[in-house]
Amino acid sequence: MVDDQLSRVFAALADPTRRGIVARLAAGDATVGELAEPYDVSVQAVSKHIKVLGEAGLVSRTRDAQRRPCHLEAEVFDLMTKWIDRYRRQAQERYERLDAVLAEMQDGVRPTRNPQQGEAS
Amino acid sequence: MVDDQLSRVFAALADPTRRGIVARLAAGDATVGELAEPYDVSVQAVSKHIKVLGEAGLVSRTRDAQRRPCHLEAEVFDLMTKWIDRYRRQAQERYERLDAVLAEMQDGVRPTRNPQQGEAS
Repeated sequence: MVDDQLSRVFAALADPTRRGIVARLAAGDATVGELAEPYDVSVQAVSKHIKVLGEAGLVSRTRDAQRRPCHLEAEVFDLMTKWIDRYRRQAQERYERLDAVLAEMQDGVRPTRNPQQGEAS
Repeated sequence: MVDDQLSRVFAALADPTRRGIVARLAAGDATVGELAEPYDVSVQAVSKHIKVLGEAGLVSRTRDAQRRPCHLEAEVFDLMTKWIDRYRRQAQERYERLDAVLAEMQDGVRPTRNPQQGEAS
């Protein structure tokens, strides 16, 4: 279910080390050893993070996990941005409607802009 | 620190009920009671979810928490999309460079493609 993957993706990115790994993989595939280097953590700890990222669909790697490089599946980002954009747009439209109502209220004080009644008549 | 808020925002959205609450608030402010209605959970459980969303900066409400409506702070989404877009773009550019290299390799084998004689010409 998409909903579950979305939960897994958000949860996977709720950790700064895992976000760091994603950032590193955006620049290019890397082995677990290479990924562990900049962090003060063991290869085993990084492997665990990679597993979480893998279960979310964000990172793929072959069976021979210790040697084969990890690869970022960047299209999974679309899942998140689709969700975010939907509600951001909805909230945005609501603010715009509020702005329109406020503008109309201000127009009520000033001369009307209704073309039917025409300012010219 | 931005990094910590990013972790809190991702963690807050890693739960389907909390995402449902955000979706509801995108349509308009709502009280905790109103938010609890569609879910088979107690007002107290929703209050707890609102607290997590609040700590992430996604939802605001006044001191009089039980009665005052919750409000979505949609601009917090920007934090996430900025992070996502940065690494998506980086990965995308890498794929494009790969495509360019592949295209160049193919150009070396096949003759250069001539502009086709289309209907428009």
